[in-house]
Amino acid sequence: MAAVEAEAKAAEKEEEQVVNPWEVSAKDGGKIDYDKLIDRFGCQRLDPSHIERVERLTSRPAHVFLRRGVFFAHRDFNEILDAYERGEKFYLYTGRGPSSEALHLGHLVPFMFTKYLQDAFKVPLVIQLTDDEKFLWKNLSIEESQRLARENAKDIIACGFDVSKTFIFSDFDFVGGAFYKNMVQVAKRVTYNQAVGIFGFTGEDHIGKVSFPPVQAVPSFPSSFPHLFSGKENLRCLIPCAIDQDPYFRMTRDVAPKMGYNKPALIESSFFPALQGETGKMSASDPNSAIYVTDSAKDIKTKINKYAFSGGQDSIEKHRQLGANLEVDIPIKYLSFFLEDDAELEHLKKEYGAGRLLTGEVKQRLTQVLTELVERHRRARAAVTEEMVDAFMAVRPLPHMFD
Amino acid sequence: MAAVEAEAKAAEKEEEQVVNPWEVSAKDGGKIDYDKLIDRFGCQRLDPSHIERVERLTSRPAHVFLRRGVFFAHRDFNEILDAYERGEKFYLYTGRGPSSEALHLGHLVPFMFTKYLQDAFKVPLVIQLTDDEKFLWKNLSIEESQRLARENAKDIIACGFDVSKTFIFSDFDFVGGAFYKNMVQVAKRVTYNQAVGIFGFTGEDHIGKVSFPPVQAVPSFPSSFPHLFSGKENLRCLIPCAIDQDPYFRMTRDVAPKMGYNKPALIESSFFPALQGETGKMSASDPNSAIYVTDSAKDIKTKINKYAFSGGQDSIEKHRQLGANLEVDIPIKYLSFFLEDDAELEHLKKEYGAGRLLTGEVKQRLTQVLTELVERHRRARAAVTEEMVDAFMAVRPLPHMFD
Repeated sequence: MAAVEAEAKAAEKEEEQVVNPWEVSAKDGGKIDYDKLIDRFGCQRLDPSHIERVERLTSRPAHVFLRRGVFFAHRDFNEILDAYERGEKFYLYTGRGPSSEALHLGHLVPFMFTKYLQDAFKVPLVIQLTDDEKFLWKNLSIEESQRLARENAKDIIACGFDVSKTFIFSDFDFVGGAFYKNMVQVAKRVTYNQAVGIFGFTGEDHIGKVSFPPVQAVPSFPSSFPHLFSGKENLRCLIPCAIDQDPYFRMTRDVAPKMGYNKPALIESSFFPALQGETGKMSASDPNSAIYVTDSAKDIKTKINKYAFSGGQDSIEKHRQLGANLEVDIPIKYLSFFLEDDAELEHLKKEYGAGRLLTGEVKQRLTQVLTELVERHRRARAAVTEEMVDAFMAVRPLPHMFD
Repeated sequence: MAAVEAEAKAAEKEEEQVVNPWEVSAKDGGKIDYDKLIDRFGCQRLDPSHIERVERLTSRPAHVFLRRGVFFAHRDFNEILDAYERGEKFYLYTGRGPSSEALHLGHLVPFMFTKYLQDAFKVPLVIQLTDDEKFLWKNLSIEESQRLARENAKDIIACGFDVSKTFIFSDFDFVGGAFYKNMVQVAKRVTYNQAVGIFGFTGEDHIGKVSFPPVQAVPSFPSSFPHLFSGKENLRCLIPCAIDQDPYFRMTRDVAPKMGYNKPALIESSFFPALQGETGKMSASDPNSAIYVTDSAKDIKTKINKYAFSGGQDSIEKHRQLGANLEVDIPIKYLSFFLEDDAELEHLKKEYGAGRLLTGEVKQRLTQVLTELVERHRRARAAVTEEMVDAFMAVRPLPHMFD
């Protein structure tokens, strides 16, 4: 066991790029190397044929996040599309660890994409709020973790999910019954050495951490939700998530066939970069590294102008001459996530890259886009009542989930 | 971690006496050394003052198992009696791992004693059926573990528990809510290294085993049962159990104060010996090592005559001359558990020890006693209906639990 652990650590050290559910950091302050990550994790790259196929099957344009490679990797996504083409449905599973009250834009990415998938494929969705995980990993009380879960649920609901197709649950509320039985089934099939190899636990970690992976695994199995999927135990599951969650689902996919279940399919995103640059995920400990959905228009403007790393040149003269380095420019990166108009984005990139647009002008456009986005989110969230939260979180059948 | 593990193993090897929840074996086929066990575990011996105090507080004679040292060790039993004397109540918690359909006499010992405690102190009782544990440790399906739990519940109910004071639950049915929250609270406070030190897990053990100890810990906390103890979170807990379960509760007692709870108190029994002699617990794999509650009168007679290890001499002449060795004699040992009449037991021991009674005569008396006991149990069990099982296992308040 000690050997396996040391090996895992050595492998990480050698690469100097750490990506796991609790830490994302690039090598020496550089960018995350996603090709290397795909190799190490053993998933596949999404390619244009996937996008084309999604558009054909859903009769609508692919989401910006798919067209522009925000979601870039997958496992068995072809099997999901094959099954869908044959007329079989599937369900979506995503989640959030409720560690903070205010979500930032990076937190919204998987939910915006999941909403698109739900609308495009007309399929049910389960959203797990891992309040138990956050209690185990952070210095939070159970009550605070649960409060954050419910607050986060409001932001998630504000993304526009269909209550007739969506079940949101908190682990502390929902673990039990068929869900617990599946947890124990998974736990019986993973040795401690394997868990160390996948997650890098050490002997000084508490056994709560060691016990948690099955909790995140089992929403991949329809039988964990008898109120939704009774009699549909073979329904396939598609998990949209950021690629740092891949270790959980590698484990899940190993175990699934031994339990007589389908392996869940995955569609995985890159990380939304910090304002300061693309070296990892945004940091919850530095509020100036991210735009929050609670930021005012003034906050957004200030943060973008002050902190957003620019690929523009030092002087106007030099900029007019050389143009901006779009590869490292955060305003362009953010616009490629949230500016929906392909033509305008192309225009901005061309003009900025050629030095005809200045950083200030690009930042101004980004400020507009994000202010509108955040304002729209704020209005939607303000309209989410406690009763709506109760409705989404009620343990109930969803008779119209495949309509 | 490897170091702690090796140390624990070395300590066990040195003593050559292994007592943990999954294995009980004495040194070189000798007897279990209970004094050594008390030292190693750090519990205390019960003494005559405890027995006297119990009799005074309950105004009834102490149970045979208490008078004769079957229950011989404790942790904080004084605190329970002090509190009871001040007019504070407590609750009892015991359990069973449902690994086999038929119970043997050794399995009945803690339940017979717990029933006495419930009657004498007029206190509520929770009984945990660890069907999840048995699924994790044995080659059983979840369904079979649950079926065995329900069958075992019938034998437990047949011991005469008061349905108005007793809640029996299966982990697979009951884990969730406040119970799950307490599991996670415990798990957060025990490192993997500590769990290895207490339970001897290895890296090749599955993480289900590592996850289980908190499940057995949390019935020690009233808050795990909000339907019973809401508003009584400071109620003390007394756990009657065999001493091999002590590791679970050492862990529980370490963690309890950190969670703001009382440490559970324990009253611990020695092991009921196999027919072949006192080297450990009876073995489930050898049906001739034990008397089962399903054995016929003929089975009982045959097993006692054929297998019960005798301390009598090889020939009648030698026996008349030297008398029986009562220390190793299984019929006398069994009678000391189940023959209630102190005077008769003393008489048998004296006459047999002096060689005036022969092994055959003592075995005949034991056959009578056990046949009656088993027949009484069989009648009681036959009267246990499915509705009664449902009643004991219903998640419900117990308004008369302290009457």
